[in-house]
Amino acid sequence: MSSKESKESVVKRFMQEMAYYVLYAAKIVKDDDVEKGIDMILDSLNDSKKILVVGAGRSGLAAKAFAMRLMHLGFNVFVFGETITPALGDGDLIISISGSGITKVVVTASSAAKDVKARILAITSHADSPLAKLSDHIIIIPGRTKMAAEEDYTIRQILGEHEPLAPLGTLFEITLNIFLDSVIAELMQRLGKTEQDLKKRHATIE
Amino acid sequence: MSSKESKESVVKRFMQEMAYYVLYAAKIVKDDDVEKGIDMILDSLNDSKKILVVGAGRSGLAAKAFAMRLMHLGFNVFVFGETITPALGDGDLIISISGSGITKVVVTASSAAKDVKARILAITSHADSPLAKLSDHIIIIPGRTKMAAEEDYTIRQILGEHEPLAPLGTLFEITLNIFLDSVIAELMQRLGKTEQDLKKRHATIE
Amino acid sequence: MSSKESKESVVKRFMQEMAYYVLYAAKIVKDDDVEKGIDMILDSLNDSKKILVVGAGRSGLAAKAFAMRLMHLGFNVFVFGETITPALGDGDLIISISGSGITKVVVTASSAAKDVKARILAITSHADSPLAKLSDHIIIIPGRTKMAAEEDYTIRQILGEHEPLAPLGTLFEITLNIFLDSVIAELMQRLGKTEQDLKKRHATIE
Amino acid sequence: MSSKESKESVVKRFMQEMAYYVLYAAKIVKDDDVEKGIDMILDSLNDSKKILVVGAGRSGLAAKAFAMRLMHLGFNVFVFGETITPALGDGDLIISISGSGITKVVVTASSAAKDVKARILAITSHADSPLAKLSDHIIIIPGRTKMAAEEDYTIRQILGEHEPLAPLGTLFEITLNIFLDSVIAELMQRLGKTEQDLKKRHATIE
Repeated sequence: MSSKESKESVVKRFMQEMAYYVLYAAKIVKDDDVEKGIDMILDSLNDSKKILVVGAGRSGLAAKAFAMRLMHLGFNVFVFGETITPALGDGDLIISISGSGITKVVVTASSAAKDVKARILAITSHADSPLAKLSDHIIIIPGRTKMAAEEDYTIRQILGEHEPLAPLGTLFEITLNIFLDSVIAELMQRLGKTEQDLKKRHATIE
Repeated sequence: MSSKESKESVVKRFMQEMAYYVLYAAKIVKDDDVEKGIDMILDSLNDSKKILVVGAGRSGLAAKAFAMRLMHLGFNVFVFGETITPALGDGDLIISISGSGITKVVVTASSAAKDVKARILAITSHADSPLAKLSDHIIIIPGRTKMAAEEDYTIRQILGEHEPLAPLGTLFEITLNIFLDSVIAELMQRLGKTEQDLKKRHATIE
Repeated sequence: MSSKESKESVVKRFMQEMAYYVLYAAKIVKDDDVEKGIDMILDSLNDSKKILVVGAGRSGLAAKAFAMRLMHLGFNVFVFGETITPALGDGDLIISISGSGITKVVVTASSAAKDVKARILAITSHADSPLAKLSDHIIIIPGRTKMAAEEDYTIRQILGEHEPLAPLGTLFEITLNIFLDSVIAELMQRLGKTEQDLKKRHATIE
Repeated sequence: MSSKESKESVVKRFMQEMAYYVLYAAKIVKDDDVEKGIDMILDSLNDSKKILVVGAGRSGLAAKAFAMRLMHLGFNVFVFGETITPALGDGDLIISISGSGITKVVVTASSAAKDVKARILAITSHADSPLAKLSDHIIIIPGRTKMAAEEDYTIRQILGEHEPLAPLGTLFEITLNIFLDSVIAELMQRLGKTEQDLKKRHATIE
């Protein structure tokens, strides 16, 4: 490493690496799977249908950020664990997020949703996880475990040695945040919604 | 746009654009400002000192995700508005996050923190905002408004026309999430912490 | 105190004292004020109208418990500070709870609600507090400060000497919880709602 | 009922009935069980030990209100599902609250706590519920189901006919709130803590 490079801060280098990881993730995400997921969400755009998002820890926070925008777009959306969470039923949708696909509360909630005949859209890194198995549809978002086995040498070069700097679920969570905002972008375009439409529903008091 | 490109989904294109925006943001963020902010945080790594993070809406969610990792690193950290929020005092630190720098609860909480002699570290897009003015130190993270006036033609090209796809505070929030994880990466390196150290403090029950 | 009484645990004595305090509070609460408050809430039972509840700390938790039941009754209700909090406007209602009537976030949120022409229903112990002054209607619920000046000797006897056992806002909060459930009881009766109606809207997944 | 009585509002009558229910509950709660529970809590008053409280819905809100006061008393306490929730282990305590004793997240979290060798203190109406069975100690708080079979004619008279006015878990939740504050009162007395001690740890910024 040259002396010039060594003066670059960890913060800048890490931001760049994460950006490259997102570019990599954009290639990995399958368009067909995404489109089917978006169709499931659009199918809920109906006063009598509800969407419930569920996730634990930092994935749960990403789920909340997504729910806010779905609300801005006019969806009847709720967040698992918050005060205002009505009963789900036949025809409703649960969006269940867990990188590992084994997070207990997510699997438990999804299983309960299945019992009342709600549909389950899972977002996870693991197609063979308990969450994925009980879901109606899954969208795979890459996270760290995936990365470790990555055969693409360039990607491994870029991320491999610095991986410890993205501890625990960080890679999944960063990709997840941007992926969910991308889904919002596509929903806006499909619904012909402008930012002005969103502003009307944005909290005026916070 | 070629027919091949036109078949690329909005989701993929948006993910790529956000990645480029993060690369742009990595250039904008000032190393010296970041280093001083990190020093303020490290100065709180002391059993008798507390950190309180505050943010509203989606910035508040990013603040929570950051707080989780600070806790994993051993900091005595709390989130404004949650159940367990003890009194702040002289020597404690409030990390106040608001893209616009005018969010009422953030400014109000920061002002109250100043009254009890806590130090204020602000993360915002606006150096001349009310939040920035009452803070001891600010770190500027670019967001949309900044972008609109961006003189860099390439960046404008990349983002300008698609800006409506990143509605409201999206650009700030995406950059913020990655920036805060980058701060965690630098804190880990400075403290010589490994992922194993973080795992020990990670919730076992969720 | 006889030896038999002295064997009674603090827990049992305190539960009894709190019960007597609630009986006292039931006399203090003014029927006319309550009825007007209930009319304001019933006026919001309309798909296009929203209710936002706001409170800090333990009063905020009571506000959430109240919001859950309002939701079960079919109101379009939201909790300040949670993920799903849409814009308020003309004709909407904010229910602002603060024993002291000076809690910063409650006053700030209420003031913002006034700016967008929402009506404000305050629940507080202090008719001359900043919160009370900016509200359209107030309901007074007794709390500790009130008690201290209480002229009723019996009440003072019952509570006065043990007051330190109900620290900080405890008396207000306990009364508040029961008062809000009483409002739910009256709303159920006025709306002709049965428990079965509530169950239909109760979270099935938690 | 005389015409004068009939003019009393539902709100006042309900507040009185709830007060009588709390007096009844104070008799039902077993001193020995409470004392053992308080000993388990006091045993956690040690910098290296943690308490985690867990509850769903309105019981979860009561759990949070309890956690706030435990924090004010100097306990190292956390709330299941909030941002700052560290790993539990051997010697830590989980306080699990569920009237029915079958609430999924409470049972799941308690079971996970058992796996890491934390002790479980359950507060429930049902001594034979799944929650009760996996707990190290239980405290029984009466709730509605209990009431329905109540043999005490006076109590049935007082509450029986109005029971629908206390829908769903209301009776348990109201009793729970007051019971938990009574535990705080006893902890204060045992620890020799005054309100001034609590104020020092109360949030200054909210």
